[in-house]
Amino acid sequence: MGNITTWMDTLTSTLSLLNFYTPFPLLATEGETADSSFILVSVLLSLVVIYFASKLGGEICLRINLPPVLGELLGGVIIGVSALGLLVFPESGATASDSLLMKFLEVTSNINPESLQSVFSAQGEVISVLSELGVIILLFEIGLESDLKELIKVGPQAAIVAVVGVVVPFALGTVGLLYLFHLSVIPSVFAGAALTATSIGITAKVLSEIGRLTSSEGQIIIGAAVLDDILGIIVLAVVSSLAKTGEIQVINIVYLIISAATFLIGAILIGRLLSPFYVKLVDSMKTRGQLLLVSVIFAFVLSYIAQIIQLEAILGSFAAGLVLAETEKRKELEEQILPIADLFVPIFFVSVGAKTDLSVLNPAIPSNREGLIIAAFLIVVAIFGKVVTGFTLFGNPNLNKLAIGVGMIPRGEVGLVFAGVGSASGALSPATDAAIIMMVILTTFVAPPLLRIVFKEPVSTPQEAKS
Amino acid sequence: MGNITTWMDTLTSTLSLLNFYTPFPLLATEGETADSSFILVSVLLSLVVIYFASKLGGEICLRINLPPVLGELLGGVIIGVSALGLLVFPESGATASDSLLMKFLEVTSNINPESLQSVFSAQGEVISVLSELGVIILLFEIGLESDLKELIKVGPQAAIVAVVGVVVPFALGTVGLLYLFHLSVIPSVFAGAALTATSIGITAKVLSEIGRLTSSEGQIIIGAAVLDDILGIIVLAVVSSLAKTGEIQVINIVYLIISAATFLIGAILIGRLLSPFYVKLVDSMKTRGQLLLVSVIFAFVLSYIAQIIQLEAILGSFAAGLVLAETEKRKELEEQILPIADLFVPIFFVSVGAKTDLSVLNPAIPSNREGLIIAAFLIVVAIFGKVVTGFTLFGNPNLNKLAIGVGMIPRGEVGLVFAGVGSASGALSPATDAAIIMMVILTTFVAPPLLRIVFKEPVSTPQEAKS
Repeated sequence: MGNITTWMDTLTSTLSLLNFYTPFPLLATEGETADSSFILVSVLLSLVVIYFASKLGGEICLRINLPPVLGELLGGVIIGVSALGLLVFPESGATASDSLLMKFLEVTSNINPESLQSVFSAQGEVISVLSELGVIILLFEIGLESDLKELIKVGPQAAIVAVVGVVVPFALGTVGLLYLFHLSVIPSVFAGAALTATSIGITAKVLSEIGRLTSSEGQIIIGAAVLDDILGIIVLAVVSSLAKTGEIQVINIVYLIISAATFLIGAILIGRLLSPFYVKLVDSMKTRGQLLLVSVIFAFVLSYIAQIIQLEAILGSFAAGLVLAETEKRKELEEQILPIADLFVPIFFVSVGAKTDLSVLNPAIPSNREGLIIAAFLIVVAIFGKVVTGFTLFGNPNLNKLAIGVGMIPRGEVGLVFAGVGSASGALSPATDAAIIMMVILTTFVAPPLLRIVFKEPVSTPQEAKS
Repeated sequence: MGNITTWMDTLTSTLSLLNFYTPFPLLATEGETADSSFILVSVLLSLVVIYFASKLGGEICLRINLPPVLGELLGGVIIGVSALGLLVFPESGATASDSLLMKFLEVTSNINPESLQSVFSAQGEVISVLSELGVIILLFEIGLESDLKELIKVGPQAAIVAVVGVVVPFALGTVGLLYLFHLSVIPSVFAGAALTATSIGITAKVLSEIGRLTSSEGQIIIGAAVLDDILGIIVLAVVSSLAKTGEIQVINIVYLIISAATFLIGAILIGRLLSPFYVKLVDSMKTRGQLLLVSVIFAFVLSYIAQIIQLEAILGSFAAGLVLAETEKRKELEEQILPIADLFVPIFFVSVGAKTDLSVLNPAIPSNREGLIIAAFLIVVAIFGKVVTGFTLFGNPNLNKLAIGVGMIPRGEVGLVFAGVGSASGALSPATDAAIIMMVILTTFVAPPLLRIVFKEPVSTPQEAKS
C-alpha cells in the first residue's frame, strides 16, 4: 500500500495544478443536493472501475482457458480491500480514507472533507444493493434458461446430491475438528455447518458460460444448489440458535422447512395458474418495455416474499424465471434480460471479489498460522464432501458424476455468511474464523477452472476444443 | 391521508394475524447484515411500486391518446408525496412514518423500529441514484438515436432557439415581476431565471415516443435543449452569486462557458478520434456483454467528467451516445440499450412525479393564494417565451415552428432546481417559491400532450392517425 499512497500523492499534486474544479460551490446552498450529486458521481466512478475490472479479468481468464467469472472475481480482489483499495465497503469497518476511489473523488472534485464519509457510506450502500440486484437478476436468468420439467425429473437425484452434500461435509468436518483438533463443540459445529453451503451463483454462471446449464448434469447441479441454499438457511438457523441458547429450537426449524416448501411449490403452482393471464396482459399492453417490466415486477415480488420469510431473495427470482420459462414469452424475455444481466451481474461477482479479505492468508498474523492447519483440513473435507455427492447417484451410467460433485464445491458468499455470523456471535476463535474464510476463498476460486476441466470439451465453442 | 391511515391500520392488524415472519431474528447477530437485507427488500418493494405506477399510468395515457411519459409522471404523483405516500424521499424532510411503503415493510417483516429510519433513508438514496442513472441512460439512448451531422447542420438554428428561449422568458418574467407585481430585484431575477430552463428528458422522451426524434424539428429541439441546459447552468450560477454576494462574478461565468464548450467539443473530437480503437477493442473481446460494457464505461466516464466540472452528468452521456452513434456498432448497441432504458428510465419519470409536491396548489395555504396570481403570470410568460422561439427561424417554410417552440416548454426537474436553490438561499418568499413550482408543474405536465397535438399525425403508428 505504501507505493500506492506515494503514487496517489503525486497524482494529487499534479491534478491540483490542473485546478479541475470551479472556484465556487455552485449548488452548495443546498447541502442535500450537493451531497446527492457526489453520491451519483461516486457511484458512476465505482461502476466504471467495476466494469473495467470485470472485463479485464474476464478477457484474461478466457485467453488462458479459465472461466471468465473467475476473472471477474479476481478482478474484484485486485480493486478490492486486499489490493488496490479502489472499491472498499463501509460494512467491513473501512472509512473514506481507506478508499482510493474516495481520494480520487476528493482530488478531482470540490467535495468538502466532512461530507466525504457520508458519500462513502452511501456509495457503499448503493453498490451493495446493485450487486444484490445483480445476483437476483442472474438467478432470474438461470431460472428462465432452466427447464422446470427437467428439474422435476431430476428432482430426486438433485435431492440426494443436496442432502449428501450437507450431511457428509458437516459430519466429517464437525467430528474431525472435535477429535483431531480438540476444538469444543460449538466452534466445531459452526465450522462443520460452513462446509455445507453451495454458491449457486458461481456454479450457475460457469455452467452457463460453458453451455452446460441445460444438460442433465447442469440441471441436477442447479436443482441441488437451490435445495442446498434452503438447507443452508436451516442449518444456519439451527447452528446459531445452538450457539446462542445452547439448544435447538425445533419449532423454528419446522417453520423454516414448511415455509420454504410452501414458498417454492406455491410460487410455481400459482405462477403456472397465472401465466395465461400474464401472456394476455403483456399482449394487451402497448407501451415500451411492457414484457420486461411485468416480468420484473413478478420476479421482484417473489424475491421480496422469499427474503421476508427468511429465505433468500434469489430463490424468489429463480422461481419467477422457472415459471416464466414455461410461457410462450420465454425467448423474447431471454433476449431482453441478456443485456440487463450483462450490466448487473458483474457488479455482484466483482463485489464478492472486492469484499474478499486476503489478509487471512498473511502468515505474519499468528491466528492465521494457527488457522492454516485447520484450513487445510477444512479444504480437504470441503472438496471431498461435495465431490462424493455425484457418486451417490447409482445406476446412471451416462451421468458425469464427477462433474456434479465438482459443481457443488464453491462456497462463495454463502460460506462467508456462516463465517460472519459465527464470528459475530463469538462462537469462533480468530484462528477458526480465518480457517473458514480460507476454505471459502479456495473452494470459490478453484471450482470454476475445475468445473471446466471435468466437463472436458466446451460445448458452446467447439472450434476451441480442437486446438 | 386520513382514510389511507385507517386502511393501513386495518391491513396492519390483518397481516399481524398471519404472523408473516419468523419468531426469531435469524441474522440479527450481525446488525449490518440485517439492515442491508432490509435495504434490499425496501428497494425491491419501491421498484415494484414504481414499475406498476409507470405501466398503469403509461397504458391509461396511451389509450386516451396522451403520451405515455405523462402517465409515468402522473403515476409518480399518485404514489408520491402528494397522494398515497408510497414513494417519498427523505430529502424532502419526510421520515419513515410518512412512507406507506415503510409501514408495509414494518408490518410484513420483523424489522425493528429503530432501524426503520436508516433503512428509509438508504432506500431513498438508492432510488435517487437509480433515477439519476435512468436519466443518464435516457440521454445516452437519445444521443445514440441522434445524428451528429444533422445536429451540427441545425446547430445555428438550435442556438437561436436556445438563446431566444432564455432571453425572452427571463426578460419578460423579470421586468413583469418588477413593474407589475412590484417585487424586489433579487426574487424577480430568480423567478425570471427559473423560466429559462428546459427539461431535455421529458421533451426527448415524447419526441422518441411519437417517432419525431430524428426529424429536423426534433433535432433542433434536442440541440436547443442541450444548449439550454448549459445556458441554464450559467444563468443559475449568475443568479445565485448575485443573490449571495450582490454582484456577478464574471470570472466564474467565463470559466463555465469555456469549460462547457471545451467539454462538448473535446468529448466529441476525442471520441471520434478514439472510435476506431473502440470498434477494434470490442471486436477483439470475447466475453459476454463486451460491446455494452465498453460503451457504458465510456458514457459513465464522460458523465463523471461533466458532473465534476459543474455541468450535468446527462450532457456527458448524451455526448457519448452521439459519438458512438457514428460507429458501425450503433445498431447493435441501440438494441442492447433498449431493455436497459426500459428498466431504468421509468424510475426517473416516476420519481420526478413522486417528488412533485402538489400542496402548492392547495388554496387553504395563504402563500399559495398570493402565489396564484404570480403563477398565472409566470405560466403565460413561460409558454409564450418558449413558443416564440420557433418563429425566430426565418426563411425555413418547411419547418414546423410551433412544434419547436412547444418542445421547449417543459421545465421539469431543471426548473425545480432553480426553485430549490432560490428558496434555500432565502431569496424567494414562500409565495414566489410556490408560484415558480406551480409554473414548473403546469409546463411539465402540459407539454407532452401539446407536443403530440402540434406534431399532428404520429409517424411511428400511422394506423392510429386514420382512426
